[in-house]
Amino acid sequence: MSKKYVYLFTEGKGLGKELLGGKGANLAEMTSLGMPVPQGFVVSTEACAKYTKDGKKISSDVEKQIFEGIKDLETQYGKKFGCANDPLLVSVRSGSRASMPGMMDTILNLGLNEKSVEGLAKKTDNPRFAYDSYRRFIQMFSDVVMEQKKEVYDKILKNYKDAQGYKLDTDMTADDWKQIVKTFKENYKQNQGSDFPEDPKIQLLEATKAVFRSWDNERANIYRLDHGIPYEWGTAVNIQVMVFGNKGNTSGTGVAFTRDPSTGERKLYGEYLMNAQGEDVVAGIRTPNKIEELEKQNPAIYKQFCDTVYKLEKHYKDMQDTEFTIEDGKLYMLQTRSGKRTAKAAVKIAVDLVNEKMIDIKTALCMIDPKQLDALLHPTFIEKDLKACKPCGYGLPASPGAACGTIVFSAKRAAKLKEADPKAQLILVRHETSPEDIAGMKASQGILTATGGMTSHAAVVARGMGTCCVCGCTQISEIDEEKGIVVINGKSYKEGDWLSLDGTAGNIYEGKLPTEIPGEITGDFATIMEWADKHRALKIRTNADTPNDTKQAIIFGAEGIGLCRTEHMFFDHILAMREMIVSKTLEQRQVALAKLLPIQRDDFKGIFTSLKGMPATVRLLDPPLHEFVPHTDEDIQILANEMGLDFAELKKTIESLHEFNPMMGHRGCRLSVTYPEIAAMQTRAIIEAAIEVSKETGVNVTPEIMIPLIGEIKELKFVKDIVVATADSIIKESGSKIKYMVGTMIEIPRAALLADEIASEAEFFSFGTNDLTQMTYGFSRDDAGKFLEDYIDKKIFEADPFTTLDQKGVGQLITMSVEKGRAARKNLKIGVCGEHGGDPASIMFFHKAGLEYVSCSPFRVPIARLSAAQANIKFPRKK
Amino acid sequence: MSKKYVYLFTEGKGLGKELLGGKGANLAEMTSLGMPVPQGFVVSTEACAKYTKDGKKISSDVEKQIFEGIKDLETQYGKKFGCANDPLLVSVRSGSRASMPGMMDTILNLGLNEKSVEGLAKKTDNPRFAYDSYRRFIQMFSDVVMEQKKEVYDKILKNYKDAQGYKLDTDMTADDWKQIVKTFKENYKQNQGSDFPEDPKIQLLEATKAVFRSWDNERANIYRLDHGIPYEWGTAVNIQVMVFGNKGNTSGTGVAFTRDPSTGERKLYGEYLMNAQGEDVVAGIRTPNKIEELEKQNPAIYKQFCDTVYKLEKHYKDMQDTEFTIEDGKLYMLQTRSGKRTAKAAVKIAVDLVNEKMIDIKTALCMIDPKQLDALLHPTFIEKDLKACKPCGYGLPASPGAACGTIVFSAKRAAKLKEADPKAQLILVRHETSPEDIAGMKASQGILTATGGMTSHAAVVARGMGTCCVCGCTQISEIDEEKGIVVINGKSYKEGDWLSLDGTAGNIYEGKLPTEIPGEITGDFATIMEWADKHRALKIRTNADTPNDTKQAIIFGAEGIGLCRTEHMFFDHILAMREMIVSKTLEQRQVALAKLLPIQRDDFKGIFTSLKGMPATVRLLDPPLHEFVPHTDEDIQILANEMGLDFAELKKTIESLHEFNPMMGHRGCRLSVTYPEIAAMQTRAIIEAAIEVSKETGVNVTPEIMIPLIGEIKELKFVKDIVVATADSIIKESGSKIKYMVGTMIEIPRAALLADEIASEAEFFSFGTNDLTQMTYGFSRDDAGKFLEDYIDKKIFEADPFTTLDQKGVGQLITMSVEKGRAARKNLKIGVCGEHGGDPASIMFFHKAGLEYVSCSPFRVPIARLSAAQANIKFPRKK
Repeated sequence: MSKKYVYLFTEGKGLGKELLGGKGANLAEMTSLGMPVPQGFVVSTEACAKYTKDGKKISSDVEKQIFEGIKDLETQYGKKFGCANDPLLVSVRSGSRASMPGMMDTILNLGLNEKSVEGLAKKTDNPRFAYDSYRRFIQMFSDVVMEQKKEVYDKILKNYKDAQGYKLDTDMTADDWKQIVKTFKENYKQNQGSDFPEDPKIQLLEATKAVFRSWDNERANIYRLDHGIPYEWGTAVNIQVMVFGNKGNTSGTGVAFTRDPSTGERKLYGEYLMNAQGEDVVAGIRTPNKIEELEKQNPAIYKQFCDTVYKLEKHYKDMQDTEFTIEDGKLYMLQTRSGKRTAKAAVKIAVDLVNEKMIDIKTALCMIDPKQLDALLHPTFIEKDLKACKPCGYGLPASPGAACGTIVFSAKRAAKLKEADPKAQLILVRHETSPEDIAGMKASQGILTATGGMTSHAAVVARGMGTCCVCGCTQISEIDEEKGIVVINGKSYKEGDWLSLDGTAGNIYEGKLPTEIPGEITGDFATIMEWADKHRALKIRTNADTPNDTKQAIIFGAEGIGLCRTEHMFFDHILAMREMIVSKTLEQRQVALAKLLPIQRDDFKGIFTSLKGMPATVRLLDPPLHEFVPHTDEDIQILANEMGLDFAELKKTIESLHEFNPMMGHRGCRLSVTYPEIAAMQTRAIIEAAIEVSKETGVNVTPEIMIPLIGEIKELKFVKDIVVATADSIIKESGSKIKYMVGTMIEIPRAALLADEIASEAEFFSFGTNDLTQMTYGFSRDDAGKFLEDYIDKKIFEADPFTTLDQKGVGQLITMSVEKGRAARKNLKIGVCGEHGGDPASIMFFHKAGLEYVSCSPFRVPIARLSAAQANIKFPRKK
Repeated sequence: MSKKYVYLFTEGKGLGKELLGGKGANLAEMTSLGMPVPQGFVVSTEACAKYTKDGKKISSDVEKQIFEGIKDLETQYGKKFGCANDPLLVSVRSGSRASMPGMMDTILNLGLNEKSVEGLAKKTDNPRFAYDSYRRFIQMFSDVVMEQKKEVYDKILKNYKDAQGYKLDTDMTADDWKQIVKTFKENYKQNQGSDFPEDPKIQLLEATKAVFRSWDNERANIYRLDHGIPYEWGTAVNIQVMVFGNKGNTSGTGVAFTRDPSTGERKLYGEYLMNAQGEDVVAGIRTPNKIEELEKQNPAIYKQFCDTVYKLEKHYKDMQDTEFTIEDGKLYMLQTRSGKRTAKAAVKIAVDLVNEKMIDIKTALCMIDPKQLDALLHPTFIEKDLKACKPCGYGLPASPGAACGTIVFSAKRAAKLKEADPKAQLILVRHETSPEDIAGMKASQGILTATGGMTSHAAVVARGMGTCCVCGCTQISEIDEEKGIVVINGKSYKEGDWLSLDGTAGNIYEGKLPTEIPGEITGDFATIMEWADKHRALKIRTNADTPNDTKQAIIFGAEGIGLCRTEHMFFDHILAMREMIVSKTLEQRQVALAKLLPIQRDDFKGIFTSLKGMPATVRLLDPPLHEFVPHTDEDIQILANEMGLDFAELKKTIESLHEFNPMMGHRGCRLSVTYPEIAAMQTRAIIEAAIEVSKETGVNVTPEIMIPLIGEIKELKFVKDIVVATADSIIKESGSKIKYMVGTMIEIPRAALLADEIASEAEFFSFGTNDLTQMTYGFSRDDAGKFLEDYIDKKIFEADPFTTLDQKGVGQLITMSVEKGRAARKNLKIGVCGEHGGDPASIMFFHKAGLEYVSCSPFRVPIARLSAAQANIKFPRKK
């Protein structure tokens, strides 16, 4: 017996979405609940996989099972496929495991041809209906199967109506539709070079193939990437007996949610149209009625519908998004699924369902997509304004939120404009940002870059600041800072022009769109967060470099700092930093370091004070030194004057800092090996700040000093010795009793491979997953944008590994490090501070890998709290 | 009982060099053989480790054992340490596990003070001898223990002799020496601020500490690095009763080898001086006699000495380097060890010892240092000329051999000069070379760069070409191409000045030193190679990109090509390549590729023909495209003219290729993902060449097509599909039956981690250890030079991981890949083609890891053959 690829709705109960797709599984479920579902069958996702594997062909056994399904429907309904008397008509719809609304294609009224349309007309005594159905079928078939734009047919229809003086489709008579059918078919032949297929079997097979194919269309691919749906899943095809909402005034069709998907309020929310098929509701040709009006129009049907959908809500224990059709006064359910909802609604519904005792807290926590919470933390555009306008371009959604401002092309200029007018709203447009742009980035509402990925400098810094950012906008063909011009999608914008950025979607809009700012964490959101905290095992820390960031993160629920990047502090005091870098002798360098010491100490004091005793991991200087030095002659001259140096000599020194691959160059602990005095100064600043804050506030500060970029145990030992010697002597002198820890980042593959050795010297590990991903893949995150797009287009990658952790490769190193590290040091503290610390899928992995905490940017803390709870609910950690 | 740290020579037999050091172990051995050895004891290497661990202090138990040793010697010899009548005098010498001739320090005549010198004078009835010994002791003690340059004392002595009108030391009387001792001690006090120590116990402890300390001196550290001797080993200290060659004319001292260390000829080879102590022979104050003359002077002693040293040679089964002293007509052996020898001698001695049936072939193979063979393949300077002149600078010994030429600062100019005068001898001096310098590098005898490490572009290419190269010369403070000036160690050289480079040692000399060119592989060298081939399990392939390189490598014994870099071919046809790169459309690119196709095909034909059926692994295009594009406006203009493009637009295109970290950028298989047509063209060239050569020569060519930089199975599959589709269609069309393989490099950590998946698509693996080392450490090989020096100075690294494979980290990934790869595909072919393929220690690892072959540059093939034999002798592989 050959494998089963086709399942009747009556056979499908409990077989699951993986096999039947969401729509098919729910239709089978509704059938088993005795609800009024037009019967049909599902061609399974396995058939889709087979289709792809067989070189995009439907194999004979699948074909055979499809027509057995048809035969079964013929028997059930006493109709015949392609019959001239009483034809069986079906719809063909896609349905994948995950809901992908509107992403794939649907064909209705399949089975109509020259003969059966007449049969339908006779049988229903409604030729107008029959030909209306036929023309719809031709149009959908042409569009979906033959890829002929449906607009062509819309235009034919419009021209016809105009010629006849008709305004509405309801003005059309049977003969009008007949004429339209004729014109449509002529058009089809002209375009396709062959007649519109008469054989319903061919129609069905072609339609099935088209649905399989639609899994790979551009819309679907983009949606899949956005939602992390694997290409392998494939889609099922649902073939279902037609019911008709367009049979006359006692027929109709509609969609409804059991709760308001925008607010979450518990009330039926939807629309319907009488004498119409499904797409009429969506297409907006006629204005649909609110669902409430159905109660007046047909109270019995309304009650039956309400009973059904709330039964479904109770059955599925979630807000339902349903489709229905009324045929000749009889209700049919065409679909039910968990409804998409806004973040606000998601939170309210989850809390309400718990209060209504429909679900427990764990289920509530698991039903919210953590990523959605972003929308509750950043200013956003108003939904309806967005709908009204088209983006003028798009890039990567690098840092969420909405921002409007006038274009400015240099960070310096942005800072200057902001100083002149503190209320100035600015959008900084750059090829890519660099650390010296920080001040200008802070001065801007939004940042738009032409290159760079989700973890480019602009993206990381913007997320850290909570500033909206769209990066890697490949549609920018030119940025001319001198002329003050940026060209997006061929259109030129100049300094001072208004742009609006949607950092959540990655869209760019012309002009100034209004925004709304959601409040802080209160109400239902706060309830969810409280519940999440009770259920998670992972601690959530934040990546923060300033007291302000720290305070913000604590408001969002952070339990400490997982990564304090000390270099960010230096950009505010860049001259002293530069002096330190270009020093030629130890003495010169120490003079410059002495200037930096009090600044760093004060910064740490501010941070430690904000933390009120929560832990803080402080990373020693990490980036290559040349990132800090001036690159223009003008800036070099300023530094030369400041230091009393010769311009030419200074320029030479700066040039000597150039590296071919700075990411793998003289940075991280390698700086401390060459210049131990830098590590000593930083340790002094940290320890002195800790002692002072402990004294002043009476709260014990226990800094965790983190040495970055370790690849070798002796390297760690070398730097650690400097840290310990410095710290211990300061503590001894001060008479204080503060404690501190020394640990390392695991971000070099070799450190992961030798984690047992490393753990013998490190008191804690923190995974730097950005660098670890870079090195494990050999990808420069600053350059990968250029080819990652091709990788995703060509389905080599399903996600950007800088956004979602690569569990197979990078994850293997992490698991290895955890095992080896804990074997060597039982109480080794392990966390993660890379960008992945705020990504839900990655957090799930970190939870399973047994980490103690994740650390992420302040605005991702709530997402991490919820994700950690979901992880622990799905994979409970032993206490 | 406390641990034993001190061993009498009579106790030491068989305890080994690890514990006693080489010198100590051999003294114990000679003692046990009944040879005339002045007795003494060894303070073990464990004591040295304890000294380091204890914070550079000699612990009380070690001290106690030392003086117990002294007591034992006092008993044996009936003398007393520090005694005013018949004092026990000792020498204190270092002796580490590996022979480090002259690298560490020695003190003779220890035990002398104001009293005991008188005792010695009386006892020997030779006050001249006693005070001569005393002044020597003071001088050595000051030098070795107190770090006061011995030249100061030499000068005092010279001034004294001049004042007295003496020419030779033998002119000095007892009173003269007494006066010198007085002056020396005054000088000591003046310099050290304290009297010269009178207490022999203090003298001995200080001297012992000084020897321990000398393990860490600059000379020793450099030698250790050069010879890969671990710092941890430490040195033993040998304390031995003095015998005196300076007692008068029946006393003397000398050194002798059992065979000529330069040629290997079997004859006693050495020098001696009567009435002298050891350092006189070395210092060259008096001209020593040839050892043969001793036969005339004292035939009995000569015979006794000959018998002894040839007994030792037989005992140790190797050529011995011995030291002896004659005291009052009695022979004493002070040292024996395996003698250092030239490459030529090493090979001859090994073969001779087998012929003399003293050793078997395996032993012969293991006694030659494979690295030495280099000297037999490259031109070299003449030893005695080298000794006569001082280097004017040094860098890394990047590519061995000797080269003289006039300085030239640009590759273009080098090529031009060579074209004008094919006999021109040139030294190309650059900051660093780049691929576009290839022609100029080919035109030069030697290459000198200011930056870049052992695997920088210059180094790799030079080694590949067999061209002498010194790179990373940090003593170059300036290179001004425009002015035509390079400044080395503060001295300026201009274009046209002669320089001589010693690529084997890394030295730079002013002027033109004569060179000698050794022949090809013949005679004893050929015998050794033949033996090696019989004993090795690893196959040896070569990295070659041209028919010439290939032929050279085959002469040296290569069994195929392990890495043919296709990009090198493009530099000879750079315009077409550039055209391909800057193409904006697929069509443009295909036009350019069509120009490149016949060129590549011809190149491959040449290589396949040279190989006569031996296998060839051809790597698809690997480097970032921007390496190929012009960077000067002039060159951009030429390309613009050639392609009929606008200069400004072309310049923009080229700038858009810039990458922040090109090593981790758009290169390797990533190019084929973006531009599948490049992989298709290269496959076509390879397969068509293979078909044509198979037809023309009747020898089957089976190309191995290698896809570089793979990190993900789908990426490999994507490129493999292009290769297979192209290859199969060409083969089918041609009607040929040739076979080919498709494999990948393992050079990205992720590929190693997922080697099982990768092996499901790859028919072979080749480890690209250069990139694998870069990514595993996160080190850019082009930039690491800047900090690796600090790492080595600070003992964080003991070797450059780009030269000798890091077995713990990178090696772990290799072992993992081999296991996972073979588990997934049983007959997976595995080799290595990184620079490490020619490094003996790394070859040992690759053998143990179970690889099938190593591939290295042509001039390293003989080294690899011998290394592979040694590996299989030490760790025999199951057949």
